[in-house]
Amino acid sequence: MSVIVHKYGGTSMGSIERIKNVARRVAKWHSAGYKVVVVPSAMSGETNRLLNMAKEITPLPHERELDMLASTGEQASSALLAMALLAEGIPARSYTGWQLPIYTDNSHTKARIISIDHKKILDNLNDGKVVVVTGFQGINENGDITTLGRGGSDTSAVAIAAVLKAKECLIYTDVDGVYTTDPRIVSEARRMSTVSFEEMMEMSSLGSKVLQIRSVEFAGKYRVPTRVLSSLTDPLIPLEEEMISGTLINFEEDKEMESAVVSGIAFSNNESRITLLDVPDTPGIASSILTPVADANIDVDMIVQNQSVDGNTDFSFTINHVDFQRTVNLLKDVVIPAVKARDLAIEEKVAKVSIVGLGMKSHVGVASTMFKTLAKEGVNIKMISTSEIKTSIIIDIKYMELAVRSLHHVFGLDAK
Amino acid sequence: MSVIVHKYGGTSMGSIERIKNVARRVAKWHSAGYKVVVVPSAMSGETNRLLNMAKEITPLPHERELDMLASTGEQASSALLAMALLAEGIPARSYTGWQLPIYTDNSHTKARIISIDHKKILDNLNDGKVVVVTGFQGINENGDITTLGRGGSDTSAVAIAAVLKAKECLIYTDVDGVYTTDPRIVSEARRMSTVSFEEMMEMSSLGSKVLQIRSVEFAGKYRVPTRVLSSLTDPLIPLEEEMISGTLINFEEDKEMESAVVSGIAFSNNESRITLLDVPDTPGIASSILTPVADANIDVDMIVQNQSVDGNTDFSFTINHVDFQRTVNLLKDVVIPAVKARDLAIEEKVAKVSIVGLGMKSHVGVASTMFKTLAKEGVNIKMISTSEIKTSIIIDIKYMELAVRSLHHVFGLDAK
Repeated sequence: MSVIVHKYGGTSMGSIERIKNVARRVAKWHSAGYKVVVVPSAMSGETNRLLNMAKEITPLPHERELDMLASTGEQASSALLAMALLAEGIPARSYTGWQLPIYTDNSHTKARIISIDHKKILDNLNDGKVVVVTGFQGINENGDITTLGRGGSDTSAVAIAAVLKAKECLIYTDVDGVYTTDPRIVSEARRMSTVSFEEMMEMSSLGSKVLQIRSVEFAGKYRVPTRVLSSLTDPLIPLEEEMISGTLINFEEDKEMESAVVSGIAFSNNESRITLLDVPDTPGIASSILTPVADANIDVDMIVQNQSVDGNTDFSFTINHVDFQRTVNLLKDVVIPAVKARDLAIEEKVAKVSIVGLGMKSHVGVASTMFKTLAKEGVNIKMISTSEIKTSIIIDIKYMELAVRSLHHVFGLDAK
Repeated sequence: MSVIVHKYGGTSMGSIERIKNVARRVAKWHSAGYKVVVVPSAMSGETNRLLNMAKEITPLPHERELDMLASTGEQASSALLAMALLAEGIPARSYTGWQLPIYTDNSHTKARIISIDHKKILDNLNDGKVVVVTGFQGINENGDITTLGRGGSDTSAVAIAAVLKAKECLIYTDVDGVYTTDPRIVSEARRMSTVSFEEMMEMSSLGSKVLQIRSVEFAGKYRVPTRVLSSLTDPLIPLEEEMISGTLINFEEDKEMESAVVSGIAFSNNESRITLLDVPDTPGIASSILTPVADANIDVDMIVQNQSVDGNTDFSFTINHVDFQRTVNLLKDVVIPAVKARDLAIEEKVAKVSIVGLGMKSHVGVASTMFKTLAKEGVNIKMISTSEIKTSIIIDIKYMELAVRSLHHVFGLDAK
């Protein structure tokens, strides 16, 4: 019988009652003959509780110890889920990342999976057991615990589905699929029954919180059929109904080429913009600025370098807000003295709004429609970045919701 | 320089501020040149929080999964302490039981340590680092996480001190030493500056909560100088003062032979008494009753078999209340049908009070003084058990405090 991987997010595991519901749902699949591997996140709020304690200890906790701490959340929820399954009469066993093991690189707090030893999983599946595997974590070559970063349990689940060649990876979450944009902001947002891999990649990278981008990368690389669906339905709904619910990530893009020009709008209010002022504009300046940042494992997103005036230029880039303080310190201590910039201008919190669609490849004027719409609403654009299937802009946080709603309407995404 | 092992209990680790204080205290020892290994318990309340969630899932959670769950408490507190040390500028590194590893047997929730691989500890100590090791846990031969039972972090600390041949194992706790009895019950209780190993063994086995008995066994077997002292003093008090505070467990009993006849009174309100009624009194009956109980890893404490009447006898024993339900189920399902007992009489909660003293070896009439004192107070004795240096009785819970106070006074233990 087929292997199927279930992943449950923090909200789905958010209380004892919900964990019992997860167990009932998994039991249903197990009883239908599937070989089920379950990857739970930490109970909602738990990871924040742990990280807040760390921050109370010290503003910049040691990252190896931070992983040691944060990984306990998934270990606890995995044990609770295995108990709940056993209490339902389903043979089950939980494993941590180090017990399998799941090997990662050494980048604490944002490690990447290198390999997964699936022997214990297979042995237990063949033995008729449900296998619960902690999401979000692994070990590095030294035997230290590593974590995969926020949302890393999605990546764990898809990677496990890949090595097991699972029939499908079901990402159960507190929404019932992927929407044209966040329905909490735009009530007219529509659920898509399928979304192309490329669009999903852009949506994830742009801050749509449905799936972590690395999980989508894994899904794409290993062509893992991945479905986002709700964990809040009755756990005992018929299997046939559950199997076609949610949104399936689709690898056959050609079929859908004639679809909407823009298929979704992603946004994030968790960006920081940093500008180095009056940098002498010499060859290699971008590399001199960004190499130390990359070496510190800080992801730079959008980059803009202005026209040079009198041999000096302003150099701006955005990062995730989580890296803000670390980046500012690095720039002040290392980069500014090295590149002889005059000063630093910072905007600690800005918003990013992006339109995404495969159809943008073959249609001109999409970005222009975007800019015109925002101009009409009086929204000032601070930065622009474009790729084949998306256009992103940075704006003031206070305009974010207005921008998303207008664009959702203009590009014909509102539900009928 | 000497190796020293510190162990901090849940109360000592009970808040971020207290963890910072632990770090300051450890830093003081490290700066004085000691090679320090620290074994922290879970933050107070954390283990109960985890076990309560398990009980909400199911009344009898699977024990392998229970260990997977419970072990996260110490992992989190160890990581937090390592962070706090690093934030104090002290090089430090935390390790879980599986990372060293600490090998145990397979008895989930009450495993015994088999061996400790101390290579990583020594390497880090020689490298100038403080090593934080999670208490309470290890792994079995299958690589499953095991826990050592309540108070197991004491055992972890003493066992680590033993393999490292540490100068001393310092058990930091929320009391400032071992008392003649619990000062919360008897305000006249006195702190002992030393206590013999034998007395400490009896005190621990009898429910005095200062040290887990297996830690005292380890201390005795490997002659680990072990001191119980307060973690609530100013962490920066002079080292010389701290080094002679608390109560030291003394292995040279002869010195103290002329000391008090009774040196301490231990008690516990966490016992259950179970009686099998009208058991046919055939040879081997005790073994038929107790072997299945021992096989289920349930510790039987006191045992009484009555005089046989018409070939039938009543057979009573006491156990820790934590095993009560499991024991009753086992007796009903397995033992009663096998030994043809008529019925079961249970007292779910009774109290045990014990007088302990090396001097009892050479003095007669001590038990008799105990019984006379209780009779005068109108306390009915339900069971009696004696050994060379202790006499224990089972009584109604409601008389426990009265009994302890009277005995403390009669045996001259009250502080002047």
